[in-house]
Amino acid sequence: MTALVQLAHGGGGEATRRLIAEHILPRLKNPALNPLTDGAVLSPVAGRLCLTTDASVVRPLEFPGGDIGRLAVSGTVNDLAVMGARPLALTLSLIIEEGLPLATLDRILDSIAATAREAGVAVVTGDTKVVERQQGDGLVISTAGLGVIADGVELGIPRIRPGDRIIVTGTIADHGLAIMASRAGLGITSVVTSDVAPLNDLCSALLAHGSALRFLRDPTRGGVANVFADLAEDGGFSVDITEAAIPIAPATRHVAEMLGIDPLVAANEGKLVVVCAPEAADALLATCRRHARGRNAAIIGTVVDRQPPLAELITVIGGRRIIGRPYGEELPRIC
Amino acid sequence: MTALVQLAHGGGGEATRRLIAEHILPRLKNPALNPLTDGAVLSPVAGRLCLTTDASVVRPLEFPGGDIGRLAVSGTVNDLAVMGARPLALTLSLIIEEGLPLATLDRILDSIAATAREAGVAVVTGDTKVVERQQGDGLVISTAGLGVIADGVELGIPRIRPGDRIIVTGTIADHGLAIMASRAGLGITSVVTSDVAPLNDLCSALLAHGSALRFLRDPTRGGVANVFADLAEDGGFSVDITEAAIPIAPATRHVAEMLGIDPLVAANEGKLVVVCAPEAADALLATCRRHARGRNAAIIGTVVDRQPPLAELITVIGGRRIIGRPYGEELPRIC
Repeated sequence: MTALVQLAHGGGGEATRRLIAEHILPRLKNPALNPLTDGAVLSPVAGRLCLTTDASVVRPLEFPGGDIGRLAVSGTVNDLAVMGARPLALTLSLIIEEGLPLATLDRILDSIAATAREAGVAVVTGDTKVVERQQGDGLVISTAGLGVIADGVELGIPRIRPGDRIIVTGTIADHGLAIMASRAGLGITSVVTSDVAPLNDLCSALLAHGSALRFLRDPTRGGVANVFADLAEDGGFSVDITEAAIPIAPATRHVAEMLGIDPLVAANEGKLVVVCAPEAADALLATCRRHARGRNAAIIGTVVDRQPPLAELITVIGGRRIIGRPYGEELPRIC
Repeated sequence: MTALVQLAHGGGGEATRRLIAEHILPRLKNPALNPLTDGAVLSPVAGRLCLTTDASVVRPLEFPGGDIGRLAVSGTVNDLAVMGARPLALTLSLIIEEGLPLATLDRILDSIAATAREAGVAVVTGDTKVVERQQGDGLVISTAGLGVIADGVELGIPRIRPGDRIIVTGTIADHGLAIMASRAGLGITSVVTSDVAPLNDLCSALLAHGSALRFLRDPTRGGVANVFADLAEDGGFSVDITEAAIPIAPATRHVAEMLGIDPLVAANEGKLVVVCAPEAADALLATCRRHARGRNAAIIGTVVDRQPPLAELITVIGGRRIIGRPYGEELPRIC
């Protein structure tokens, strides 16, 4: 008989204690987590702190290239990393639907542990709740991340200047299209694979370029289009993106065309949009390409001093179209 | 027409931006949150850090004495406070079910803001997701808290000694019974009111007693029974609790009897279990009673050097019974 999560596992009593002792602790154990007190105590830290949080509601829980656990850890690590912060600790809130197979939970916990190891950060505290059976696929994860920002690191839209270059660190839209293809039942799920991965090591390599690095962002929900719209709207300058320069995997492009999805608005979970000084663009591009998570990086655009501030795509045939922020999302629960 | 949360509000695009700009930011605005970057940047902090997280899944979302927003903030603040930490910042993850009235969301956001102000802490970063309509009551909140522990503060079970006294800071079981009564439709919901409240100010007053204060815990899921069982199991000593000394409000006792619930296992969200040196017990009790959140505090038990380690209740009629950890929970989604 398949062992399932039961409501009692979330009650805070003996059943919760066993779930934690038998399923969670063996996978995530570390000195801060092990006392299982109300909170984790961490050593003093020198430097500005960075705090971030993510709720992961992706369906299906396991998808080509990853699962909700890898997504939760990567998403939070990446939110810290693009702020210029080194991740110090993660929290893990599990909201489990009654009836989730314990074997599924175990696989996702294994993935959380493996991804946290890959990022070099520990889950130091958590909470587990169980809710009644609803539509059956059953797990929401919320993570928070604490990081430290080294002295001298200053990233952000206010540091961007006209003439700066825009780099994307690899093929776009892989996560969003992998999820959409697997849900659409196209039978091509193995072809498009999510890019979900922690990017703190790549960010750290980029930070070594100093003040030539202006801005980092992970283009998740809303895709790169959302980031370009943010740059124009919050920065007050325009952004010219060269369509032909944007890396897109052939399989991803194919699925996007089948589903009628603009790859610019599809989610990424293992890519960065980088803005840098023009004279440093080639060096930053080389740093990306030397890194396993940036092999297919490309310079795709330029910040320009043109009003009103708009993000524009210079199309393959030489036309121009405005890159708008997507209103909602083509499919819910992408991340 | 009632305005409802839609899936597009969680898509990360224009609709999400408006939800945040029109509903969340006006209520929670503060210097760290306002830039709406991927994470909040906080000034350097001297001292050990404390990190904690809570998932709140309570039903109904609004209940006598509080709501899920007050519960989420109080729960996280209290987890920090019982670790001896001063709260510095909170994160807020909203997982909203499609169809939740925006007016309900607004009331809960107001409550989050008010409770955070009461606790003297700001929500510095957040995430918002929307999931498909399921069973209709629609909101899960996950919060994380960052705090700082002052030099010299050392609390925990290893500091407890035989002879130490056990204090509870007020009437027990009010939160659990308020929720159960409101769900059971007893028509007596206004009589039993949740105690949900931030306790960091009370904890701070108790910490001023120095090393005589051994241990603090907020007896949430599983009630005070769970804390007593933890003390015995993790501490290796026994705990004698005097039933007649435990403060219980008459209405709460009445509802507990009607529903057949042991108040010892019912959740509290605004109470502390305090362990202290015997010679300081009266002074700590007086500190509690001077505080608005500790008016009904009482000394209810003693740590004793008796093996095997067990928590025992000395009943009103002079008998003894073992206080067991509850296995699961009488009703799910208490907190």
